[in-house]
Amino acid sequence: MEPGTARIAVDLLGGDDAPAVVVDGALRAMRADPDLHLLLVGPAEVADGLIGALDPVQRIRVTVRPVRAAVGMADHPVAARADSTVRAAVTAVRDGIADAVVSAGATGATVTAAALGLGRWPHVRRPALVATLPAVAGPVVLLDVGGSLEPGPATLVRHAVLGTAYAAVAHGVAEPRVGLLSVGTEAGKGDRLRRTADPLLAAVPLPHGARYVGLVEGYDIASGSRADVVVTDGFTGNVLLKAIEGAYAMAGGPPASGGVPRAAALLGVAGTVVVCHGAARGDDVASGIALAAHLWRRRATETVSALLDRAPQTPSQPGDHADRTTDTEVSL
Amino acid sequence: MEPGTARIAVDLLGGDDAPAVVVDGALRAMRADPDLHLLLVGPAEVADGLIGALDPVQRIRVTVRPVRAAVGMADHPVAARADSTVRAAVTAVRDGIADAVVSAGATGATVTAAALGLGRWPHVRRPALVATLPAVAGPVVLLDVGGSLEPGPATLVRHAVLGTAYAAVAHGVAEPRVGLLSVGTEAGKGDRLRRTADPLLAAVPLPHGARYVGLVEGYDIASGSRADVVVTDGFTGNVLLKAIEGAYAMAGGPPASGGVPRAAALLGVAGTVVVCHGAARGDDVASGIALAAHLWRRRATETVSALLDRAPQTPSQPGDHADRTTDTEVSL
Repeated sequence: MEPGTARIAVDLLGGDDAPAVVVDGALRAMRADPDLHLLLVGPAEVADGLIGALDPVQRIRVTVRPVRAAVGMADHPVAARADSTVRAAVTAVRDGIADAVVSAGATGATVTAAALGLGRWPHVRRPALVATLPAVAGPVVLLDVGGSLEPGPATLVRHAVLGTAYAAVAHGVAEPRVGLLSVGTEAGKGDRLRRTADPLLAAVPLPHGARYVGLVEGYDIASGSRADVVVTDGFTGNVLLKAIEGAYAMAGGPPASGGVPRAAALLGVAGTVVVCHGAARGDDVASGIALAAHLWRRRATETVSALLDRAPQTPSQPGDHADRTTDTEVSL
Repeated sequence: MEPGTARIAVDLLGGDDAPAVVVDGALRAMRADPDLHLLLVGPAEVADGLIGALDPVQRIRVTVRPVRAAVGMADHPVAARADSTVRAAVTAVRDGIADAVVSAGATGATVTAAALGLGRWPHVRRPALVATLPAVAGPVVLLDVGGSLEPGPATLVRHAVLGTAYAAVAHGVAEPRVGLLSVGTEAGKGDRLRRTADPLLAAVPLPHGARYVGLVEGYDIASGSRADVVVTDGFTGNVLLKAIEGAYAMAGGPPASGGVPRAAALLGVAGTVVVCHGAARGDDVASGIALAAHLWRRRATETVSALLDRAPQTPSQPGDHADRTTDTEVSL
């Protein structure tokens, strides 16, 4: 763990099993990281319960931002009430009271709150969700896993640059190998989106001495043997991540290198935001908080954003109008 | 194993490691199934080598259809020469000399040879590749895994009907549960293709007492707990199948229920055709031959085709023009 204080705003009401699993995850994260400070965003009674489980030395690392369930919403499901907590958590980052946000609430609501509250990076139409799999050969950065379900080729190219910078900055991968996920490895394999994006990717300059290795296949995600950064559309990436998680569960557990992450970084907004799986358990929320602290300590968001600003911009490409924005239709 | 002779035409030159792995697979299949007859399609010397490894009683179950490498192609890679063997194997089925075809050659070449040589079913624009995963809860029929990379919603609906009939006829699944793969389970989750197809699927009559269970996620493929038939586009299905195979390899092996199949049935042509993975090993080719024999003995292709003829036809839907035909761009 890198040194340095990290102040993480935690959405107490986000997630299918909130607030219980969020409280559990926050407690685990507090105990694991002595430099972690938490801003608990949600009902005061939930925050009080969490604080009651900490010893006095830990308590000074916790602050509460009480957010009541909106008037008349007490009977609504937690998921509906969580919108106001994630917005308040984002506001805390915007105001400099916290360094990063973690929410296991609806991905669409978090993306919307972050984009509105923190602003988007220039040239980013829609933020990307980036998952890192702990593959045997090293970390594999997979993007997008749900931010853009129907990207055009230029978005895939931007994501290749973004994923490369993220692999280098967040995970210390030297000279990342970048692949485009398709149905075969020979040039020309794939649908129109892949066939258009492949030559664009071969031509685009990548940061950090990265090189484009061409088309990769589904096998390569879990092994990491062919690429450190795997670029795909958000529909395929989301389905794939869950399929690998399901396969590990059926095979008796993940490999020794680690399982499928249930937290993803949101890249494309001006701040550090981590989205946890809606069905996150306590240890998943703890991992999400640890990821947010790690990204903040490396100033990953700022550094990646600055790299992209300096990178040559990809001109709009034929077919990029096919990039369709759709909101709140994905569950991570 | 069901009783009854099955005469399978085997493409000796199909596959990355042909003819060695095909010969190996054919020998394994012959030894496992006493009612299996093989028509070996390829160079006479390869067939002779295979026959030399059989005992005299087995030899009477083997016939040879010699196909030389085309003139001037001796220096070409095996994959290029295999086109003529798969065409000859298809012709043998058309002429009633064999009951089914098995090839580990390029999927696109096999699909084209089968569609031209055997004809397509009515209403089928492009045949589907159907894979069956031996999930813990029972077989899961996944389609498409590479036949139609960019289907429209009406094709997904046809595939739901087709997959249901196949699950019932080929695998004996009673009242199959049919799901549409997406990024969440609540209605409205997914890209435009899924959002359009979901209500169409809820309305279409399915054969064999099947019911549509709505959207399913990546987890559900390996477990089989939510659906017996999972419908998706060929791009996602192909990538997914390989991702699960890669995950099993990383997790130390597949679950006890079995690994990811390296053979898929081609449905939509008037004959029994099985496509093996290009990187198939001997046991994969043997599984493909066993699958072809099984499908023939159940008269699965004819029965599924007859069911579809009787099923109400899905009218063309807005967006179905988005169904794009693309050839030979997939590797299974």
